[in-house]
Amino acid sequence: MAADVHVVGVGILGFGTVGAGVADLLLRQGDLLAERAGVRPVLRAVADLDLARPRGIRIDRGLLTTDAAAAVARDDVEIVVETIGGTGPAYELTLAALGRGKSVVTANKALLAERGPELFAAARDGGVYFEAAVAGGIPIIRALRQGLVANRVPRIFGILNGTCNYILTRMEEERAPFETVLREAQTSGYAEADPTLDVDGHDTAHKAAILASLACGRAVPLSAVGVEGIRDVSNLDLDYARELGYRIKLLAVIRNDPGGVSVHVGPCLVPQGHLLGQVREVFNAVLVKCDAAGDTLYCGRGAGRYPTASAIVGDIVEAAQRRAAGRSLPPPYLPDPPKIRADAYDRARWYLRLMLLDRPGMLARAAEVIGRHDISLASVVQREGPREPHVPVLFLTHRAAYGAVRRAVRELARMEGVGAPPVCFRIEDLDGEPAG
Amino acid sequence: MAADVHVVGVGILGFGTVGAGVADLLLRQGDLLAERAGVRPVLRAVADLDLARPRGIRIDRGLLTTDAAAAVARDDVEIVVETIGGTGPAYELTLAALGRGKSVVTANKALLAERGPELFAAARDGGVYFEAAVAGGIPIIRALRQGLVANRVPRIFGILNGTCNYILTRMEEERAPFETVLREAQTSGYAEADPTLDVDGHDTAHKAAILASLACGRAVPLSAVGVEGIRDVSNLDLDYARELGYRIKLLAVIRNDPGGVSVHVGPCLVPQGHLLGQVREVFNAVLVKCDAAGDTLYCGRGAGRYPTASAIVGDIVEAAQRRAAGRSLPPPYLPDPPKIRADAYDRARWYLRLMLLDRPGMLARAAEVIGRHDISLASVVQREGPREPHVPVLFLTHRAAYGAVRRAVRELARMEGVGAPPVCFRIEDLDGEPAG
Repeated sequence: MAADVHVVGVGILGFGTVGAGVADLLLRQGDLLAERAGVRPVLRAVADLDLARPRGIRIDRGLLTTDAAAAVARDDVEIVVETIGGTGPAYELTLAALGRGKSVVTANKALLAERGPELFAAARDGGVYFEAAVAGGIPIIRALRQGLVANRVPRIFGILNGTCNYILTRMEEERAPFETVLREAQTSGYAEADPTLDVDGHDTAHKAAILASLACGRAVPLSAVGVEGIRDVSNLDLDYARELGYRIKLLAVIRNDPGGVSVHVGPCLVPQGHLLGQVREVFNAVLVKCDAAGDTLYCGRGAGRYPTASAIVGDIVEAAQRRAAGRSLPPPYLPDPPKIRADAYDRARWYLRLMLLDRPGMLARAAEVIGRHDISLASVVQREGPREPHVPVLFLTHRAAYGAVRRAVRELARMEGVGAPPVCFRIEDLDGEPAG
Repeated sequence: MAADVHVVGVGILGFGTVGAGVADLLLRQGDLLAERAGVRPVLRAVADLDLARPRGIRIDRGLLTTDAAAAVARDDVEIVVETIGGTGPAYELTLAALGRGKSVVTANKALLAERGPELFAAARDGGVYFEAAVAGGIPIIRALRQGLVANRVPRIFGILNGTCNYILTRMEEERAPFETVLREAQTSGYAEADPTLDVDGHDTAHKAAILASLACGRAVPLSAVGVEGIRDVSNLDLDYARELGYRIKLLAVIRNDPGGVSVHVGPCLVPQGHLLGQVREVFNAVLVKCDAAGDTLYCGRGAGRYPTASAIVGDIVEAAQRRAAGRSLPPPYLPDPPKIRADAYDRARWYLRLMLLDRPGMLARAAEVIGRHDISLASVVQREGPREPHVPVLFLTHRAAYGAVRRAVRELARMEGVGAPPVCFRIEDLDGEPAG
């Protein structure tokens, strides 16, 4: 067990925001890493098709290349950092690196969620490291795989997309509608020009599939994740939620019970008094409910050059240590999927907001539809207000199955006298939820 | 890099609350650990002087022994779990185990804070693992040493003692005085019969010294940690703090600057709007401010049988993996201490509450003393109220040196017309604090 410093060669694929951050950290923090971890990652190549664009970091231009495949093939590159993104060239290059026995460090949640089992099967001795793929600078993968290894993990709740959390926070604070805040976020760089992946929940779904796979030890396919985005969250609902003591968050909800696994992404009401309800702006947070450690919560920046690079360099160090020791971790989960529980099992309390024509009997008719679908009401709120043609009416249900609620919502949407489409969000109390 | 399961023998010293939890987890979660981590820790011996007391777990009585030294000496015990506590037999047995090349897993913060450098020097190949020594079930040591390895860590703020946080939470919610809540906590098992180690801040100081050593990479001696407890926190101050938008927490404040390190434990005002201000009851939390990852926060249960056992079993698994690979981590920090910054550097805003005789000129005289010590006031609050002989007057200062504030407080305590001793707490805004 030598305390000597183990030198390891690193190649970075993709010289964008994150790739440049990784290069910068490796070049600046080399001595720190050698002292703390006994390994010295040395940058050998950085590949990108566009080498002209300024990156805002100092780097020896001799390290730069446009030939990613050649960078992967170099004998002196033992660890390949993939920051290209997507499932095209990133997939081919990752497979090529693993095939050569190299270790791959990636922030690519789409690649992992869609091709994880293939990558882990190809990994042989090198290993695939993916701390940066979920929740950026927060070491949540390491916590789940190592720190909490002694725990069964029946529940994970995550705020995993900084763009969505930023938009919801600003909508709440400025009382401005979704479209206005989205445009502001695009101008200030907190949202992409094409925001679909973020605001429609797909990015969160990728990360939820990865966390769910770790929780249950089997590859949860992306197709098993129920996904809703935040486009339907209105200022009206944010206000109602606040009055009721909640905030609306885009939440990944992972249930891992002996009977099976269910994973949902969607807007949920989260108690204001819970730490998860306090997570604001671009921050991410993950609440891991464990059978031995109890509730543990992790919070930090889920994106950005240096938070992501911090996670990647942590992985480079771990890969280097494990290469030096000649012993990798076992694959993070088995390739065959777990039993996925049907929607019927996915019981929760629900927030249901209708716009009803302001005339006698409408509320009773809506309540009758809800009751007929075997959904029991905890409370109904209709406020006095200006006499508009349609008025908001709020139904909070007791625990009911998602499928039943969905069917009720479909029927209500078609009912005469119902204005805008009904809005339905899950209420997550986060504590002491009964299994089932 | 074999994926075969590596069997490793474990001996537990101390069969109390935590030791029994570790035994129970090892016996119940063996298959889970083998599948997830590729190692199977097998319990070989559990040593305690008292074997009669019931522990509430099922265990083969053939594993039990009263001879701890013999358990350490067994050839089939490769990993020794020390849950005895204190710095007496725990120290001797730990040294003996390390001398035989074994790995030691410990939850003993006092031992680490007082004898850490000696233990790490003796560790040779086996290594000392101590995730459970700070913040129980939260994998904060692993986060600092591994996940955040690429970061410099200029600031750490920690709520590290569940008993104190419980008492402060109950005092705030029940508006009951310290002594009453302490007695309640003792009755309900949240405080020890002798609460000194907890309520006077020493337990937090042990943990703060360990975190500070990890942050700066050098052993911070316990003697360098400034310590105040929570006995002087009154309901009056909790109320004032709340009105000002703060909560009072027993906070470990670690500053790690190029010029040196300072570590303080004491009651601090923390903003209610910050996650750290929302941590309630027995929960612990650590805010780690990093140069690359930014702010990351970790929260969970800091004590108790299974949270602590969860951390210990995580360490057993890591020790087993590293033994299998024949390569340990480097020591967590160097034995020689860093430069410790004198109090003069420890600048903050301050909350200063005096009981002044209700007569003209008193407030001016107190303000004059404060000003003469070069402390500038941000605001002064004196409320109308019943005419008692002494009335509370609140001074909030701009940033000022701890030494100056201490001198001013000493002078004020002796001033004619000052009733009860002055109360002085640091205000930690947690965000964007200037270096100084």
